[in-house]
Amino acid sequence: MKKDFGVKPYLFPMPVLMIATYDKDGKVDVMNMAYGGIANGKSVALNINKKHKTSANIKEKMAFTIGVADSRHMTEADYLGIVSANDVDNKLEKSGLTAVKSEKVDAPVIQEWPITLECKVVDLQSTVFDGFRVLGEIVGTLVDEDVLDENGDVEPTKINALIFDPFKHGYYEVGEKVGQAFEVGKEIE
Amino acid sequence: MKKDFGVKPYLFPMPVLMIATYDKDGKVDVMNMAYGGIANGKSVALNINKKHKTSANIKEKMAFTIGVADSRHMTEADYLGIVSANDVDNKLEKSGLTAVKSEKVDAPVIQEWPITLECKVVDLQSTVFDGFRVLGEIVGTLVDEDVLDENGDVEPTKINALIFDPFKHGYYEVGEKVGQAFEVGKEIE
Repeated sequence: MKKDFGVKPYLFPMPVLMIATYDKDGKVDVMNMAYGGIANGKSVALNINKKHKTSANIKEKMAFTIGVADSRHMTEADYLGIVSANDVDNKLEKSGLTAVKSEKVDAPVIQEWPITLECKVVDLQSTVFDGFRVLGEIVGTLVDEDVLDENGDVEPTKINALIFDPFKHGYYEVGEKVGQAFEVGKEIE
Repeated sequence: MKKDFGVKPYLFPMPVLMIATYDKDGKVDVMNMAYGGIANGKSVALNINKKHKTSANIKEKMAFTIGVADSRHMTEADYLGIVSANDVDNKLEKSGLTAVKSEKVDAPVIQEWPITLECKVVDLQSTVFDGFRVLGEIVGTLVDEDVLDENGDVEPTKINALIFDPFKHGYYEVGEKVGQAFEVGKEIE
């Protein structure tokens, strides 16, 4: 039997994405976001409420970075989501995290995230839901050497990426590997 | 130290979303997708290559459902991603999964997924990346009673949702709960 919950944003897992931008004066803002991700092999799509400081910054600079939040920085990642840069002037400093300017786009790279995508805005749209859809071209992908395997590839189990649960608002870690995509299904073929 | 991988779709975790549609003759298609998710509290956004049968079906019917793939149906979910309905006529039957018509939209509900969102298309756009951006309004959220807790709420640990890894293409399960969102960050405040 299935229970109908009506209109709910119930997909799982959700990522904890950390969007970093500069405002017009060059001040860093970082917010967390579960409503975004990869759009194709070379682009990302964000879905963001227009009221966020990040929305104004993205319009101004046409650039942003996305960091993958990890469990080692869960407190900082959560804090950056609780507090708005519209209310708190120095939220990055308060979090204890550190930013450097991206070499490729006019946006900050937060040094503590294990993975950061550097993105240029290529499209901005308003939606019927008072949202802002941002299509960003990925121009760089910075990965901490700590999360690479012996071949220099990214090892998912080393990232300690956070998962967000939209049902009860918990943070989870990634668990066991259970199969190989594009392989396990061949059994049926 | 950070290593620059260039242009890579490296966000993590990614969901395994199962997009179900009817074609113009009422035939069911299901494909899996990592490049989509929630856009706001009542909408979803898909990013999909135009060549997929699903893209044609969505244009035709202006409706789709999204299922959350679970580890119990990993083989089926992977198979549905490997095989295209452009090539195989009866892929749903071959997978062994079963469909019923949604009561709310002109799209099939695959009965085996623990969670299914029923969606109406409200916007369709082409992108500069040969993609198709689909904005869907959530009109129903069907959840298996097996994944509810004693209060009738969705319990994330019961879903057994699959995670897709874009680095090495593994499937993972969700692991341990490590914190509560909008709470752990108050420590810094």
